[in-house]
Amino acid sequence: MLRKAVVVICDGLADRPVPELGNLTPLEAARTPNLDKLAFEGECGMMHTLGRGKIPGSDTAHLMIFGYDIATCYSGRGPIEVAGLGMELRDGDVALRGNMGTVVDGIITDRRAGRIRVVTPLCEALDGMKIGDVEFVVKPGTAHRAGVIIRGKGLSDAIIDADPHIPDVPIREVTLTDNSPEAKKTADVLNKFLAKAHEVLSDHPFNKERVANGDLPANYLLVRGSGQYKEVESFKEKYDLTSCCIAGGGLYKGIGAFLGMDILDVPGATALPDTDIEAKFKLAVESVARYDFVFVHVKAADSLGEDGDFKGKKEFIEKIDLAVPILSGLPKDTLMVWTADHSTPCEMKAHSADPVPVLFHGGAVRADRIDAFNERACTCGGLGYMNGLDLMPEIQNLLGKLHLVGA
Amino acid sequence: MLRKAVVVICDGLADRPVPELGNLTPLEAARTPNLDKLAFEGECGMMHTLGRGKIPGSDTAHLMIFGYDIATCYSGRGPIEVAGLGMELRDGDVALRGNMGTVVDGIITDRRAGRIRVVTPLCEALDGMKIGDVEFVVKPGTAHRAGVIIRGKGLSDAIIDADPHIPDVPIREVTLTDNSPEAKKTADVLNKFLAKAHEVLSDHPFNKERVANGDLPANYLLVRGSGQYKEVESFKEKYDLTSCCIAGGGLYKGIGAFLGMDILDVPGATALPDTDIEAKFKLAVESVARYDFVFVHVKAADSLGEDGDFKGKKEFIEKIDLAVPILSGLPKDTLMVWTADHSTPCEMKAHSADPVPVLFHGGAVRADRIDAFNERACTCGGLGYMNGLDLMPEIQNLLGKLHLVGA
Repeated sequence: MLRKAVVVICDGLADRPVPELGNLTPLEAARTPNLDKLAFEGECGMMHTLGRGKIPGSDTAHLMIFGYDIATCYSGRGPIEVAGLGMELRDGDVALRGNMGTVVDGIITDRRAGRIRVVTPLCEALDGMKIGDVEFVVKPGTAHRAGVIIRGKGLSDAIIDADPHIPDVPIREVTLTDNSPEAKKTADVLNKFLAKAHEVLSDHPFNKERVANGDLPANYLLVRGSGQYKEVESFKEKYDLTSCCIAGGGLYKGIGAFLGMDILDVPGATALPDTDIEAKFKLAVESVARYDFVFVHVKAADSLGEDGDFKGKKEFIEKIDLAVPILSGLPKDTLMVWTADHSTPCEMKAHSADPVPVLFHGGAVRADRIDAFNERACTCGGLGYMNGLDLMPEIQNLLGKLHLVGA
Repeated sequence: MLRKAVVVICDGLADRPVPELGNLTPLEAARTPNLDKLAFEGECGMMHTLGRGKIPGSDTAHLMIFGYDIATCYSGRGPIEVAGLGMELRDGDVALRGNMGTVVDGIITDRRAGRIRVVTPLCEALDGMKIGDVEFVVKPGTAHRAGVIIRGKGLSDAIIDADPHIPDVPIREVTLTDNSPEAKKTADVLNKFLAKAHEVLSDHPFNKERVANGDLPANYLLVRGSGQYKEVESFKEKYDLTSCCIAGGGLYKGIGAFLGMDILDVPGATALPDTDIEAKFKLAVESVARYDFVFVHVKAADSLGEDGDFKGKKEFIEKIDLAVPILSGLPKDTLMVWTADHSTPCEMKAHSADPVPVLFHGGAVRADRIDAFNERACTCGGLGYMNGLDLMPEIQNLLGKLHLVGA
């Protein structure tokens, strides 16, 4: 048996009933004949990706879905972000994600420097800077984003974000979560680096030109999500499955890179509602010939939920559904899995702990009586309720990749 | 309340959809009006005997179903096999299961010596043999099977099977899974014993007569499943329930003996499709007068699944169903439990991690709306999804044998 798996994770897909949609969720209200056909032919269930009563972040949810227990594999978003930028994290390093923001007279006036499109020259000006014996590696991400690695002896990730997460407040110093000498050293060099970086960025010709053009200068690095290197078994070592990642969002490429998946480039995958879903699905169909496990990430339902835009979320889900027929080009025996990493209820404009629907299709699943893919229909499905960490073993089972326990 | 329980475990009963059966499983495709009537009158659910995403062996599954956590109670199949042969395993002993096979010029030409029917005289020739200060106890099982106990000081079960599990390969030496002196000693004496046994068996008149008759000689002992004695609480101590085991297969009698159940003899119980199910069920009906808990094992659905014989599996399930009315002779209040130890999908010809259906009947269960006993109907049952270790507490609950937690 050489069955392959295609796993489509629709970020923040699940929701709560929306009064304006007749108390249906956006997924229920959306016209999704193609997804519902998959549900009719497949087996459904529900999943708490981090367990009941835990609100998943997108990073932690994806790790758990891929079978990596965050209790041992996760130490903050920094290491995942820098992996997604192709930065090599070494034992002892501390990784951070960064925003280039605007600071005027010590006040953060814009956390994204007017949604600046490129920060490459600014990152180059900071990359390799040294404070004492500690080196700072800085690489640009998409738009205002950057990855930061602190490299040196005796460092720790036990520090609190310098990013206040809201604008119009004063810049603040990095503080500690423990009193270890390592945390003190890390906070100390990082504060010195951030002050120095502010000077360098403020004087940078790239920013002077922005100011001359009436744009906000990107003159301050806001850092958060500190985490240290952790030895993580690659997806290939863990499951004996070759894998690839088809995603637009940097975090999701980061997850794939963190687990050692091949990151496939998809022109038109923007992680926004205008993303080219058809291009992603076409690439998924092409990729099963080369990979045992294809991870496809679709982002925008989450962002629309965070905006409280239930109409936009419903419409984006309909856009996903329209692209589903492309996946009928997969080899007949392929196991297709559809799910979400978490719910992003429009009423909350944030993630919630509500479970997400799961759909297994093809690959000898025990098709059940469920004929719609949504938060309520799937509660009665044959897969029952599972946790995120259960998903990969269920997939391994259907791929014939589990070993007998006993005799 | 003096309610009794009869627990029928149909080995490998559950399956996956079979295209030739209209995408029904053998259990769904089989005509089973009597089992379905029990489902209609009873309460159903699903069970992962070892938890989601773990493929159960028959030995580990039965231990978990009976509430014995394999993490602490299981050290390989050897101890269970020898228990089933009535061999007494002592602290420090290492137990193995054995096959009498045929070796020609160092090559295993048949792992079962042409499915030899009796190996008693051959086992007698090996029983009690000594290598240094270590004694080998060898007793015959059914057909080509034997139980082996290695008895002496400083032994370990950290050895790898000498049985290659496939024919037409050279015999191989027992090797180690750790570098302890105990493992080295055990491998050393066992290798010497197996070489000596090969000589003794090759020269044995019983084998000379077989060769003269054109049969394969049973001249080599293939050993596997090494395990050491573990102190296990008896079923009676653990549950305050007297119990008996009604089974044809050696392993299942072994499970019963390992847990201290009375092993009842059933003429006609062969563990094959021709087994006398009616005789087993009649004995179950008789036995509830004497025992609180009656374990009935039915084997052949598993073997037919391992052969990929979906038609045979379906027919055997119909044969089980035809015998069900005999159980209406049980006292009215008896709790009857029907389940399987694992799925054996015909498409895999092997065990899988797919969950199995569970049915509770009688004994004041909350009868639900399920009216068929199979892998899909039971997903919506009142018992929900449970793990193997949950089953005994559910049975204890209905037998009035649980204690209050709190006040």
